[in-house]
Amino acid sequence: MKPGIPKGTRDFSSTEVAKRNYIFNTIKHSFENFGFQPIETPSFENSETLMGKYGEEGDRLIFKILNSGDYLKDVRRNVIEAVTISSVFNSLLDLLIEAQKREEGNIDPFFDNLDLVFSQIKNIKEDQKTFFKTFFTDNKEDVKSSLELFFSEEVFEKDLIFELIPFRERLYKKLFSKHIDEIKVLDSKKNTSLISEKALRYDLTVPFARYVVQHQNEITFPFKRYQIQPVWRADRPQKGRFREFYQCDADVVGSTSLWQEVEFVQLYDTVFSKLGLNGTTIKINNRKILSGIAEVIGASDKLIDFTVALDKLDKIGKDGVVKEMLEKGISAEAIEKVQPLFNFSGSNQDKLASLEAMLQGSEEGLQGVADLKTVVDSVESIGLDSASLELDVTLARGLNYYTGAIYEVAAPEGVKMGSIGGGGRYDDLTGIFGLKDVSGVGISFGLDRIYLVMEELGLFEAVELPKPKVLFLNFDENESLEKVKIIKTLRSNDIKAEMYPDVATSNNQQKKQWKYAINREIEFVVTTIENGTLVVKDMVVGEQTTCSLDELINKVQ
Amino acid sequence: MKPGIPKGTRDFSSTEVAKRNYIFNTIKHSFENFGFQPIETPSFENSETLMGKYGEEGDRLIFKILNSGDYLKDVRRNVIEAVTISSVFNSLLDLLIEAQKREEGNIDPFFDNLDLVFSQIKNIKEDQKTFFKTFFTDNKEDVKSSLELFFSEEVFEKDLIFELIPFRERLYKKLFSKHIDEIKVLDSKKNTSLISEKALRYDLTVPFARYVVQHQNEITFPFKRYQIQPVWRADRPQKGRFREFYQCDADVVGSTSLWQEVEFVQLYDTVFSKLGLNGTTIKINNRKILSGIAEVIGASDKLIDFTVALDKLDKIGKDGVVKEMLEKGISAEAIEKVQPLFNFSGSNQDKLASLEAMLQGSEEGLQGVADLKTVVDSVESIGLDSASLELDVTLARGLNYYTGAIYEVAAPEGVKMGSIGGGGRYDDLTGIFGLKDVSGVGISFGLDRIYLVMEELGLFEAVELPKPKVLFLNFDENESLEKVKIIKTLRSNDIKAEMYPDVATSNNQQKKQWKYAINREIEFVVTTIENGTLVVKDMVVGEQTTCSLDELINKVQ
Repeated sequence: MKPGIPKGTRDFSSTEVAKRNYIFNTIKHSFENFGFQPIETPSFENSETLMGKYGEEGDRLIFKILNSGDYLKDVRRNVIEAVTISSVFNSLLDLLIEAQKREEGNIDPFFDNLDLVFSQIKNIKEDQKTFFKTFFTDNKEDVKSSLELFFSEEVFEKDLIFELIPFRERLYKKLFSKHIDEIKVLDSKKNTSLISEKALRYDLTVPFARYVVQHQNEITFPFKRYQIQPVWRADRPQKGRFREFYQCDADVVGSTSLWQEVEFVQLYDTVFSKLGLNGTTIKINNRKILSGIAEVIGASDKLIDFTVALDKLDKIGKDGVVKEMLEKGISAEAIEKVQPLFNFSGSNQDKLASLEAMLQGSEEGLQGVADLKTVVDSVESIGLDSASLELDVTLARGLNYYTGAIYEVAAPEGVKMGSIGGGGRYDDLTGIFGLKDVSGVGISFGLDRIYLVMEELGLFEAVELPKPKVLFLNFDENESLEKVKIIKTLRSNDIKAEMYPDVATSNNQQKKQWKYAINREIEFVVTTIENGTLVVKDMVVGEQTTCSLDELINKVQ
Repeated sequence: MKPGIPKGTRDFSSTEVAKRNYIFNTIKHSFENFGFQPIETPSFENSETLMGKYGEEGDRLIFKILNSGDYLKDVRRNVIEAVTISSVFNSLLDLLIEAQKREEGNIDPFFDNLDLVFSQIKNIKEDQKTFFKTFFTDNKEDVKSSLELFFSEEVFEKDLIFELIPFRERLYKKLFSKHIDEIKVLDSKKNTSLISEKALRYDLTVPFARYVVQHQNEITFPFKRYQIQPVWRADRPQKGRFREFYQCDADVVGSTSLWQEVEFVQLYDTVFSKLGLNGTTIKINNRKILSGIAEVIGASDKLIDFTVALDKLDKIGKDGVVKEMLEKGISAEAIEKVQPLFNFSGSNQDKLASLEAMLQGSEEGLQGVADLKTVVDSVESIGLDSASLELDVTLARGLNYYTGAIYEVAAPEGVKMGSIGGGGRYDDLTGIFGLKDVSGVGISFGLDRIYLVMEELGLFEAVELPKPKVLFLNFDENESLEKVKIIKTLRSNDIKAEMYPDVATSNNQQKKQWKYAINREIEFVVTTIENGTLVVKDMVVGEQTTCSLDELINKVQ
């Protein structure tokens, strides 16, 4: 067996772990610096906690965990039941066909003498008799017309599993449509809840909402929490998209203050500045402005089409955008009303003024402008370290759940990469778990993309890799104990040090130890000890010197 | 729906995360200080990587992940096949019974005219005819005698799923025993590989072995790796045993040096000393000594019984131990030979001398004594910070895979807790994945138990909890911007600070802000700013003062 890992997952080498941890720790430090507190939730949740929260697509992409023990028990029971009822149904159908032939199409006698019919079926159970009797009595006319229709079809076959035979199945459905769901056995989707009760975390937001509701009496609101944990999605893996990846989220729940929206802009700026990722653009928008635009163009269902088209202004020009909007069914008058958006440049203040004029007809839109103005004014007054804030009305991410601020961060210009962060405000995070009217606002950092951008820009140079600073070669058994004692002293001075474990008994083995030092890029190699003096080779400059232990400590620290 | 989490899993509050991270970071720091490098492996592995590596019990306790998409496809195909063949079998059986009655027990005509028989079965397929024909032809005598036996039974029933009917099933098995495995449908165990190809990590050792083999060309050996990641086990949850928990492992592969065994004693000592967990006992043994004892008592299969009984010396005394050993079938002569173990006290050196005398008859045993002496001598010469090293011949953990050193760490005396760490040497870690003769030695830290011990001993006092150091109350909107600017300065001085986001517009709301400060145990509260001077309340001493921003920074840092 050639060892491998599931597609879409990754092993991380020491260097990769060190670089990733550098990003994690920077984000964590800033989160805590801003007053956010960490929580952690289990890797898997009860399925009912996750299912139905991410739409149909999400439900499909959630990794489900098989129940322990005899997980097929319920499925087996259903199959047996279905096969049994299907068998009785088949026998009934045979008898019906005979009756129909015998009576030349008149099947009334069949229905009038059901007990006689049942007596001809082997092993029919009492509850099945009751079921079919009630069914035939309650739906006599329906069944008769269904049967007539059925017999008018020329082809039909007989088998035991109704799913195999389209004609029979159609009749079966017609006759028992109410019951078809229960007996549609071995359908993958319908059986999932029978064999799986737990599922892997799909994002951090739903578990967070569950956490807040479950622990509401232990939490002090407003609750500023952060969470850095892996999530899992059964997405088709592709470049930069994995089945296991980390999310880094910071959210505040229980406050509607715009100061929180200001703070998240500062938080993005702080983290990216600390990472040395200068020149990021924090794009901001407000859902209410989008609602205002929808109101002005008189078509809220066209909002996505509108923003998608508008987003292409740079690429296809005004005429192209207008053409696309018209094609999507947005009226010429509506487009006329939002003219200012086609020359939407200048400072954030210019844009706000332009929006304010444009959205005079929409109360909600004006509220959005006011909110955004508060955020923009505050950020301008406080100042950012390395990022710039840019009002972007085409920003429409999470349109279905964001209700206020919408954020997205673009990597520094020149780096080809999608957004490296995003977030927004949602008015009802915890409602799905029964705690109403809790507003939240939060942002997320895209670890894998940030990693790629930093790699591209060479920003990992400063990261200390997990390797010894000093290696003691092991050529002479008589020196080993002394070396180990010196290593203890180095380590207690917080200097990473180790001795090559196996003593070299040949030239080749000595070479192997030197190769180890080179492969692991170790800076200082102690070859031997002469009367308490260390013989040290500086592997970077390639120079060999002798020094005392204290001198080595000073040299290395 | 009342929100909850799966049994055996845990939510971690901020305080718990902070305390756990304190332990993780201490372990991590020491691992790296000792020259170990981190790796990370995916949360789930291909099932074939994990299954069969932990025994039958382990296979049962591994969490399996349901395949995506139509995961029941193969199961469905098998069921349909089985039901179909079962139906043909039932029809054949009906015809056989008729034939048997008709011919008064002579069923030869039945076998001689199989084509005639098949013609009476509706919808029988060609491949089924071939299957049954070959079967009846090849096994005529067998089938006949089986049938006679079957007919001598008084009770039998007829149904479609053979599993439901014991008599029919027995006949079915007799007739088709070679095929029963394929058609034993919907058995949970047998279907797992059809519906699940991935499984959650069960420990860190097997994924590490897989990693080493897969990446052998990128790795420099000896490879000192550490790994701190969660693992999952479908164990019955109980106090201190969880379904999701972290393992913290450090291992070296590719070296047989005893210096590594010395180093792990030092590593345990360093980590526990740094955690303030003074007075731990690092118990050590060597598998070869156990083999020597087995040789001396002349019964290697009784080794576990022997060590288990010997371990009770303190509790039940020498007579009790001897009695138990005799009951377990260890001979009186054998017990006589290992007399020294019943007075096994004194220093490690005393114990080694006693063992050396006792194991003179066993070459392997003497090798074990020599190895252990090297480790004990070295550790004594180097010195430990807070732990003590204790030779313990009853230490027999992992007897099935450890081949050299065996470690176990006991919490400080007075704390009731099982081992808080353990490990040992294994000669063939990577053999299961095709890389032979790679020796490894490693240790593990039991995070959850260490956490409980530290909680009991009050060792978390020093841990800095993730909460702001300074809270700015928000009573006056006109001050907010200035406060936010001051907070920016505090944060850039690495002081955790925040402003209460929502402005208080009533007495009650002001109280709520004070309550927030008290609940989160925030040390300094800035109430207001008067002409650039901050009004600060020290919440610990309950004193209110005024100071400049610089003074606040000095006070808080």
